[in-house]
Amino acid sequence: MLLNRKLIAKVLSAVASVVGAAMLLPAAVSAVYKEWDVFRIFLLCSLPVILVGQIVLRTTPSQKTEDLRMRDGFFIVGVSWLAMSLIGALPFMFSGAIPNFADAYFETASGFTTTGSTILTEIEHLPRGILFWRSFTHWLGGMGVLVLTIAILPKLGIGGQKIMRAETTGPTMDKISFTVNETARTLYKIYLVFTLLETAMLCLGGLSLYDALLHTFGTVGTGGFSSYNASVGAFHSGYVEWVIGFFMMACGVNFSLYSNIYKKTPLKIFKDVEFRVYVGIICGSTLFITVMLLIHNYYNGIADTLRTAFFQVSSIMTTTGYGTVDFDLWPLPCRFVLFVLMLVGGCAGSTGGGMKVIRAILVYKLVRRGTFRKLHPRAVSPIKVGDTTISAETMSGVTGFVILFLFTTLLSTLLISLENVSLTTALSSVVACLSNIGPGFEAVGPTQNFAFYSAPAKMLLSVLMIAGRLELFTIILLFTPVYWNRKK
Amino acid sequence: MLLNRKLIAKVLSAVASVVGAAMLLPAAVSAVYKEWDVFRIFLLCSLPVILVGQIVLRTTPSQKTEDLRMRDGFFIVGVSWLAMSLIGALPFMFSGAIPNFADAYFETASGFTTTGSTILTEIEHLPRGILFWRSFTHWLGGMGVLVLTIAILPKLGIGGQKIMRAETTGPTMDKISFTVNETARTLYKIYLVFTLLETAMLCLGGLSLYDALLHTFGTVGTGGFSSYNASVGAFHSGYVEWVIGFFMMACGVNFSLYSNIYKKTPLKIFKDVEFRVYVGIICGSTLFITVMLLIHNYYNGIADTLRTAFFQVSSIMTTTGYGTVDFDLWPLPCRFVLFVLMLVGGCAGSTGGGMKVIRAILVYKLVRRGTFRKLHPRAVSPIKVGDTTISAETMSGVTGFVILFLFTTLLSTLLISLENVSLTTALSSVVACLSNIGPGFEAVGPTQNFAFYSAPAKMLLSVLMIAGRLELFTIILLFTPVYWNRKK
Repeated sequence: MLLNRKLIAKVLSAVASVVGAAMLLPAAVSAVYKEWDVFRIFLLCSLPVILVGQIVLRTTPSQKTEDLRMRDGFFIVGVSWLAMSLIGALPFMFSGAIPNFADAYFETASGFTTTGSTILTEIEHLPRGILFWRSFTHWLGGMGVLVLTIAILPKLGIGGQKIMRAETTGPTMDKISFTVNETARTLYKIYLVFTLLETAMLCLGGLSLYDALLHTFGTVGTGGFSSYNASVGAFHSGYVEWVIGFFMMACGVNFSLYSNIYKKTPLKIFKDVEFRVYVGIICGSTLFITVMLLIHNYYNGIADTLRTAFFQVSSIMTTTGYGTVDFDLWPLPCRFVLFVLMLVGGCAGSTGGGMKVIRAILVYKLVRRGTFRKLHPRAVSPIKVGDTTISAETMSGVTGFVILFLFTTLLSTLLISLENVSLTTALSSVVACLSNIGPGFEAVGPTQNFAFYSAPAKMLLSVLMIAGRLELFTIILLFTPVYWNRKK
Repeated sequence: MLLNRKLIAKVLSAVASVVGAAMLLPAAVSAVYKEWDVFRIFLLCSLPVILVGQIVLRTTPSQKTEDLRMRDGFFIVGVSWLAMSLIGALPFMFSGAIPNFADAYFETASGFTTTGSTILTEIEHLPRGILFWRSFTHWLGGMGVLVLTIAILPKLGIGGQKIMRAETTGPTMDKISFTVNETARTLYKIYLVFTLLETAMLCLGGLSLYDALLHTFGTVGTGGFSSYNASVGAFHSGYVEWVIGFFMMACGVNFSLYSNIYKKTPLKIFKDVEFRVYVGIICGSTLFITVMLLIHNYYNGIADTLRTAFFQVSSIMTTTGYGTVDFDLWPLPCRFVLFVLMLVGGCAGSTGGGMKVIRAILVYKLVRRGTFRKLHPRAVSPIKVGDTTISAETMSGVTGFVILFLFTTLLSTLLISLENVSLTTALSSVVACLSNIGPGFEAVGPTQNFAFYSAPAKMLLSVLMIAGRLELFTIILLFTPVYWNRKK
């Protein structure tokens, strides 16, 4: 048989049950705010999904984990995310908040993939339960991303985390197992600690528990959905901006690094090359933008300008997408720096998207070596990150990924350009979705939204969000002939 | 000693002599049209340059060819091109046609590198001798001025392999075993045949010998300077458009392939993978744009639309930059296809610029193999083009180049964005110069020009043209510490 259908059914039904169960939380929120209509919708979506999920899960005979081949692994991961967004979209559609299917699918995919692009033009009038669910998908997605990038994707031979562990992982085996190990559990604990810490700090800043929770979900998942049209700018609070800015930055770091805090060796974090480059890029970009904005007299005083620049840089680099100002009005050099940050993205093993800092580092080193080799064609010059020598195999994977990323960007921009938009809009829409950022420039700028796109364009962008989240190969493989070729 | 100064002086003075001597041709043209002021300027620029060049050439002691190291080769080629543009700019400045230095340097660099970007707002009023020189720089630059020097000054041929490798375009697949002199002369013979053939065909189409020559220079060098503000559109002749369109396409092909015609095996051309992909891309893009333009009712009838689409595709893909219409008014998908063609460029070993078709092919195969390997991690899957297996070394060079190209594009766009322009203008200015195309989009579109840029921006774009023409490494190396580090 081509695919191990029983195992796939088992995993998919488990995923469905989890998403269904997760809907009980927004249901509870609806009950607290006495939004009984929405409460009923959540139960009507949640309970049948859990029921069907559990029936399939329990009636499907058990499988040995060793039976899971690469092929099945890709199918499960890819289809799970496509299906998750489908189930998650149900409450939006049935509650009437987002009646249109393409819109609801886009919004949910944007939530689970922690993109934060929205098709909603008017957010503040929506029921609180619905907005809670919208932001909660970020939090769930962020957690899912950690499992994916730290436990699952490396086993499928994908992902930045695999690059970091290149020295420890042996040859990749065909059969994989889905055991979530001790390390992964530590990471959830850190994720929870961050969530609690930020919520508490935001409450101290005067936010209601509801607002604090929603914006924490958006921050720690590096998502970017807000319950206000003006995003984080709605709070008019420097304290809140610094807190969210700092937590965004913290969640763009490789979560494995934080285990050093448990091990009482926190200073080891600063020895990590990717971390140092990441912090360096954020500081450098913030400085550049601050100076440019000061020259052009955009905001009052250095303190305000610095905070605004840092918030936007942190938001874009970590692919969160929160905003306090309309950065689309900034001078072009500032916007261009943000565009480059969009492409780079967060660190490997973080909840952020994009190409990842470690890949940018490796690509830079590759180019530098290429230049060196022109002069010294016979020199042996391995590529190193810290003390680790990167194998030619890994480098080939990295350049392959970067080029596939750019290739996907170009091809998708061509398709999106069939809509009646400008080049900047088309390109930044694609990058904003593929890198899981949220806002782009011009018609999809920070004060705009994706509502005007046609349904096919919205579906394409939704698939791009999921493809970007799964580091491209997982979704792209499902559409290649070689994947479905029985002989191989 | 760090650099072999004597040898460098010898080559540089030879190049200066050739450029100086080349100015005698436009001087003759000026005489024919009785433009005596311009005639005097050309002699005043030409004769001293030839004189100084010959004195240095003859007084510098001879060197053994083996003394030319890689380091010297890069220096000679890089500095020759920078200096050539300086010498070539003199007639523009002294004649008053382009009094400003940055403008004159830009225009000359644009000529020699066969870019075709112009800072002239009003072309048709300029003296005929000046316009002849402007277009003649395309012809000189097309095959490489150093290759020309090698071909006509056999004494320099020894060691010329390193020069030729640094000046000719495309990744080297195998070692050049044949003698450089012989190859250079064969290439120039083909180049001359094309020049004569196109000039004759354009004269048959009703063009004056002067117009025919100027547009032939622009075509076979894939440059794009015209003597009319409306470019090739000024002739209002379908015949002329087809002839120029066809010759542009022919000059975007690897010139070595044409040696098959000498060897009486012309059909071998069609077996070349790069050639087939190149023709395929041109046909596919022409078809796509024709259909899009027909849907939007841009031109009258299929024949007109097809010819217009083919001309623009051929012009952009070969990085010539001639225009018959303002393609910046086309629907976005058409413009985006042209933008992607700008990045790809012509074939390796042609007079065209850009990243080259063969690199696009190799990069595509690399990505495809990467996807395949995700499913079959242990499969041995070498990258092949035709029957040739590409070494990991070559692949690493190709990906390094592509990434350096994109990196240079991003960094330069950031610098150009400091000017008061739109993102599309900044990006397409950089790509148009780096890929040696000519026109870009919006403020540098086909009916616009580069005049509005500040002097520093013009100098940056000039260096980009030269860097792009020399495939980046040659110029970028001159600015790296590793190049000037004595210990290595």
